[in-house]
Amino acid sequence: MTSLHELEASAGAFSVSRRGTRMPSSPIRKLAPLADAAKARGTKVYHLNIGQPDIETPACMLDRLGQMVSKVIEYSPSTGTPEFLRSMQRYYERRLGLTIPQNQILATTGGSEAILFAFMACADEGDEVIVVEPFYANYEAFATMAGLKVVPVTSRGRDGFHMPPRHVWEQKLTSKTRCVIICNPGNPTGTVFRREELQMVAGFCRDHNLFLISDEVYREFVYDGQKATSVLELDDVDQFAIMVDSLSKRYSACGIRLGAFVTRNSEIYNVALRMAQGRLSPPGIAQFMAVGAESLGDEYTRGVVEEYQRRRDVMYEGLTSIPGVFLRKPEGAFYCMAKLPVESAEDFAIYLLSEFEDRGETVMVAPGEGFYSSPLGRDEIRIAYVLKEPDLRRSVELLRLALERYRSR
Amino acid sequence: MTSLHELEASAGAFSVSRRGTRMPSSPIRKLAPLADAAKARGTKVYHLNIGQPDIETPACMLDRLGQMVSKVIEYSPSTGTPEFLRSMQRYYERRLGLTIPQNQILATTGGSEAILFAFMACADEGDEVIVVEPFYANYEAFATMAGLKVVPVTSRGRDGFHMPPRHVWEQKLTSKTRCVIICNPGNPTGTVFRREELQMVAGFCRDHNLFLISDEVYREFVYDGQKATSVLELDDVDQFAIMVDSLSKRYSACGIRLGAFVTRNSEIYNVALRMAQGRLSPPGIAQFMAVGAESLGDEYTRGVVEEYQRRRDVMYEGLTSIPGVFLRKPEGAFYCMAKLPVESAEDFAIYLLSEFEDRGETVMVAPGEGFYSSPLGRDEIRIAYVLKEPDLRRSVELLRLALERYRSR
Repeated sequence: MTSLHELEASAGAFSVSRRGTRMPSSPIRKLAPLADAAKARGTKVYHLNIGQPDIETPACMLDRLGQMVSKVIEYSPSTGTPEFLRSMQRYYERRLGLTIPQNQILATTGGSEAILFAFMACADEGDEVIVVEPFYANYEAFATMAGLKVVPVTSRGRDGFHMPPRHVWEQKLTSKTRCVIICNPGNPTGTVFRREELQMVAGFCRDHNLFLISDEVYREFVYDGQKATSVLELDDVDQFAIMVDSLSKRYSACGIRLGAFVTRNSEIYNVALRMAQGRLSPPGIAQFMAVGAESLGDEYTRGVVEEYQRRRDVMYEGLTSIPGVFLRKPEGAFYCMAKLPVESAEDFAIYLLSEFEDRGETVMVAPGEGFYSSPLGRDEIRIAYVLKEPDLRRSVELLRLALERYRSR
Repeated sequence: MTSLHELEASAGAFSVSRRGTRMPSSPIRKLAPLADAAKARGTKVYHLNIGQPDIETPACMLDRLGQMVSKVIEYSPSTGTPEFLRSMQRYYERRLGLTIPQNQILATTGGSEAILFAFMACADEGDEVIVVEPFYANYEAFATMAGLKVVPVTSRGRDGFHMPPRHVWEQKLTSKTRCVIICNPGNPTGTVFRREELQMVAGFCRDHNLFLISDEVYREFVYDGQKATSVLELDDVDQFAIMVDSLSKRYSACGIRLGAFVTRNSEIYNVALRMAQGRLSPPGIAQFMAVGAESLGDEYTRGVVEEYQRRRDVMYEGLTSIPGVFLRKPEGAFYCMAKLPVESAEDFAIYLLSEFEDRGETVMVAPGEGFYSSPLGRDEIRIAYVLKEPDLRRSVELLRLALERYRSR
């Protein structure tokens, strides 16, 4: 029997699960209370910490809201509506040149749900997922929910965060490794993996019976005339490739929560389908809105990409002109990881929100550490360059001033 | 090292997770291919198998779609928008007479996500959740995803599926029991638990440090002038009560995928919040639509409830007039479990779709077995009485005819 003393000494009579205790906080939201306090003091905060684009959602999607005629907003099929799946098929045909049957595409509640389904379908409690770090911090959240251990393969800023060679991957392999997740183009790095890199990691997965989860939600955002390669375009990956997609960034419609889980492995598809049936449906109005967006062709994408490329250039040129700041030119997505001439980027990020201001303005960045599983990234920050050009220029200027003042304290 | 032979003999080079293998299929969708085949033969199928109401979504919600002015569909806060949370607060004030602070309400992607969050926050892989069976089949799906074992406490049709006495619950307790989930009013039973039953189970949870998850998505649907009691209305449950809510049924808006996770235990709330941050946002347009629906008062609810009560009466009177069919009068929700004079209700359900027809029509029901964890319910079916009265009458007539023919084969 447990004594009263022991009970009192325990974590509390009604204690949360161990997995609950391990659930990480979001590194991009960590400093939110400080930002709120700064705003309450009247300081304007430029948000470089979060990837919420300011680009308008395409009119054809917004117009669909006025076209809804159904009087009952019913459950959609668990797989997604046939119309939405057809829309995704058309998009993949146009964009990737691939014919993907409807029974290989599962509509999900954002890319988020697709990642959770993938982790749960590929691996069990205590299994391991290899992740290229720095990585999208919420992978850690989904891994924790699914009971997986994140095993990092480190990419380096000096290499533009491209993949380390295969022997590094081999060193991370254990009897518990079940899958690999990559983000391409990369959040938080802005790195676009080359076809040879993808082939290397696919070979690693093929040779060791690992599933390869490829998060491609930033597919359209690649600069300097390059294109991202989808894992689905690689040869001989049908049995282990899972592609995670989302409409959030592609159509600047983050709030609709609509994505997709795509795989040619019917066993994995069927497991994800049963999870999808458990939660009944993906969002219905979102699916209705999305139908037709696939006909937004290259000219739509080109306009958005040109806008982001200009912002990328402003950010890159601005940051690299600050003494001691290092980053390679980001190739895609709308993020970069920048190395700062400070010991603790988190301390500097806190300084930005709590002490610094210039003409009533400051800037918010995400400390880099939270994007690593290894104890790395202490002197790095992640920047989302989703603001308009003048705001980005001003943000860079604020960073320059703040670094000067911070270092001369 | 593994030999080639061993590799070939294994479950397949790229095998899905054990949890994936265990993921249950939905019992309400199990016979869907047979229904499709029947329709392809030109047979009209009345769907008593699925709880998709035909009641119109309130105009005030549909009208909101035309009022969206934002040009960018942005992420909402992970907790839900302040406007939506305020709307839920107003609803709880009016409906339950409870003032619930915003930091005790988390907007979720349907009730489904709230249940998954609750399981994951309360328990770990290998832990046990006690469920009153027959139960909403997807609890098994969420439990499998969360790694929990479902331990059934059996309720009986002869008792109107009311709760068994406390000593039955005590027998189910093990060192791994972490939580209890109840559905009130009940899917698939239509049972409305009385306050004393709720107090009994709350006492059981309190005495054994178990979380009590109360799925109240059918709250409004209670007949004969009764009202459902929310777990939040009980005394002394703040530390262990978690209420799962949803707008799907309340406003006949299943497709919007919007619900809530409500608890006064701040530790549990914070764990669920971190999971919510991981998936970024609940559906945004849904939240926008939902604001204002809380002002639909008792007169709206009364109209819908009267309609369902008539349907309940048609269904109950029709079914009990069939020789050998047994059920007690359902008290709420829009389901009932009926005992049929057959050995295998699944075989009968298959017969309905594959052999039987009357004047080109048949009916689809969900076999009862799938709603039990114990080997029970073989001679039961679940019926959702969401069709219009004439269709319900015809469905009952078809069931009567089919039972006659099936039994005289």
